[in-house]
Amino acid sequence: MDRKDYLERLEATTDEPDDFFEHVEQRSAAGRTHYVLTAARHGVERGTVIVEESESVVRGYPSVPRILVLDPGIPSFFEAGDTVAIEEKLDGFNVRVAVPGDEESDPLAFTRSGYVCPYTTDRARDLLPLEDFFADHPTKTLCTELIGPETPYTTHDYEGVDSHEFRVFDVRDRESGDPLSVADRRSLCAEYGFAQPRFFGRSEPSAAVETVRDAIDDLDAAGREGVVLKSADGESMVKYTTESQHHDELAYAFSLPFEHGRDFVFSRIVRDAFQAAESDETDDRLRERARALGESILRPMVSTIEDVRDGEPVGERHTVRGDPDAIDALFEHFDEQSLTIDRRSDRREDGERVVEFVKVAESSRDRIRYYLDGGTRDE
Amino acid sequence: MDRKDYLERLEATTDEPDDFFEHVEQRSAAGRTHYVLTAARHGVERGTVIVEESESVVRGYPSVPRILVLDPGIPSFFEAGDTVAIEEKLDGFNVRVAVPGDEESDPLAFTRSGYVCPYTTDRARDLLPLEDFFADHPTKTLCTELIGPETPYTTHDYEGVDSHEFRVFDVRDRESGDPLSVADRRSLCAEYGFAQPRFFGRSEPSAAVETVRDAIDDLDAAGREGVVLKSADGESMVKYTTESQHHDELAYAFSLPFEHGRDFVFSRIVRDAFQAAESDETDDRLRERARALGESILRPMVSTIEDVRDGEPVGERHTVRGDPDAIDALFEHFDEQSLTIDRRSDRREDGERVVEFVKVAESSRDRIRYYLDGGTRDE
Repeated sequence: MDRKDYLERLEATTDEPDDFFEHVEQRSAAGRTHYVLTAARHGVERGTVIVEESESVVRGYPSVPRILVLDPGIPSFFEAGDTVAIEEKLDGFNVRVAVPGDEESDPLAFTRSGYVCPYTTDRARDLLPLEDFFADHPTKTLCTELIGPETPYTTHDYEGVDSHEFRVFDVRDRESGDPLSVADRRSLCAEYGFAQPRFFGRSEPSAAVETVRDAIDDLDAAGREGVVLKSADGESMVKYTTESQHHDELAYAFSLPFEHGRDFVFSRIVRDAFQAAESDETDDRLRERARALGESILRPMVSTIEDVRDGEPVGERHTVRGDPDAIDALFEHFDEQSLTIDRRSDRREDGERVVEFVKVAESSRDRIRYYLDGGTRDE
Repeated sequence: MDRKDYLERLEATTDEPDDFFEHVEQRSAAGRTHYVLTAARHGVERGTVIVEESESVVRGYPSVPRILVLDPGIPSFFEAGDTVAIEEKLDGFNVRVAVPGDEESDPLAFTRSGYVCPYTTDRARDLLPLEDFFADHPTKTLCTELIGPETPYTTHDYEGVDSHEFRVFDVRDRESGDPLSVADRRSLCAEYGFAQPRFFGRSEPSAAVETVRDAIDDLDAAGREGVVLKSADGESMVKYTTESQHHDELAYAFSLPFEHGRDFVFSRIVRDAFQAAESDETDDRLRERARALGESILRPMVSTIEDVRDGEPVGERHTVRGDPDAIDALFEHFDEQSLTIDRRSDRREDGERVVEFVKVAESSRDRIRYYLDGGTRDE
């Protein structure tokens, strides 16, 4: 591998290969050697993958900044005169689907951190018209969200999604990461029959404030995550989320307090507090929000402590459904990542294999056990 | 200074002077040079001070571990058969008072981190019978809590304390840090007329569980902090706190969210959750606790955001009362620590000087201003 050459192709902001490649991990996936960037570095996104054999690059998905107030958050983020497109942000798992090789290669599904997930790859090939798309657009990446109650990663319920589905929210150049414009991407997805996130319209930045406010009210009432705003060319993006999403994430984090509690809690409180301050809530409304916040934090944690006390398993519960071999490959994939999986049931339903399992939360289980046994804390 | 000699006197767990002294800061206090350990290291407590001129040492106050459940927390922490003394833990400012010099030297008040606070020194000399005590016990340290609504550090209200008072909760050897036994210390303090924290009794460790449970219920109802349990010899200590204390601390932390929010929040939630789980609260009681938790987090933060929006000062508000020169020295002391102080009023009352001031919380003010102006967050 000519490492200097890859730095140029990635437009990295360093020309010292060692500076870049010290953050790169070698992994084996789909029978090939992948070099994966494990953290955003030198202008290149986390999860960027180099496939040595085919000399191809799959660019990582950029992290999306967040505004805490809509006004002046939106008008100060975008250029005056630009047209801002407003789309729903879904609570699922961000998966890039791309063909990092020659025309005979099959498409692969990459997680945000650059792993090839064999199960998600299988589901994408099954549920999305990938052959048609990649035959016409071999150098593109489909940026999708895997949503629904039955996925190995997230469990958020969406009306009309019984198990799991994909939504395509971006189409980018596989190597440069350059996005299609919002208009081109939406029509391209419609053309190939890819389901897309809800579109709330486009407008001048300052006029978008009201549109987003209304959209957020609707999404919040439906327990949905929020919105992403994009400049017309798709290059600039920013997100904003609902109260119910903040509280849902806290409930999740505090059901596994020693895995996620500390990392999640402050940022979600900050989001909620700025939202409350901007909307000038009445005292009753603020009390209601504060109480919901407190309940989303304390109840799941107390419940997890009780589970540990009662010897119940502690961790994320998931159900997956699909091809038996793909499900076996998923568990091998988890095994390679050193996850501890507790399989709760494994059955056939309508010709599909359905497995329920728990990703065991060892830190929470062990810390809680320690404190319940009388262990002390230095603070 | 023979640094090796000090390592031996401090019984440090290293005999490499550089390992120890790299954490030591040189400061000037009361006209002398103090060498202060800025973090607990090598078995020596944070805030330990060496006064070079008098070749004396003032040992730091040890950090007190915390249990999250009373049962088996108490019986597993103490030796079966030991007698555990239960005393109130006060929400004030931990100050050591000692005479680190020859007999002609005056007593000084040291903060937890080893600063000599000129104002607290003045108040201690004024309010405590230090001359009598140190004439008889020149090598002891009085470990005190400065409590009340008018102090430069904390503002917790205690019934019967109109401005500020001291409570002596420990008496230790100034150099070795060895404590008096609880019984000896309580009678010594009574003899010299030092006010002490409330005593809830002594008992065998497993019997202490019920005593502490009752004490915590009473203290919680009165909005007080909690208890410290000590072995009879005073060597082992452990603390446990009330729900109202957890919520008060969160309210304080989230009134200055970008100073304290992130550091405070997770630990207080953990304390509250284990307390709720141990007491097997009814669903109504748990809901009430969760709601109070949420209100203690969100309301102060929203209120601080509103203050920043309205151009109000943001920070800890304090009032100090006493000798005019001591108050000037306090503000010089804050200035040396690079604190930004906003004096709100400065008046005479009954022959005393009374100053109200705000310790300006620059991080909160500036971060909140940034987000209100539309700034983004990368998460």
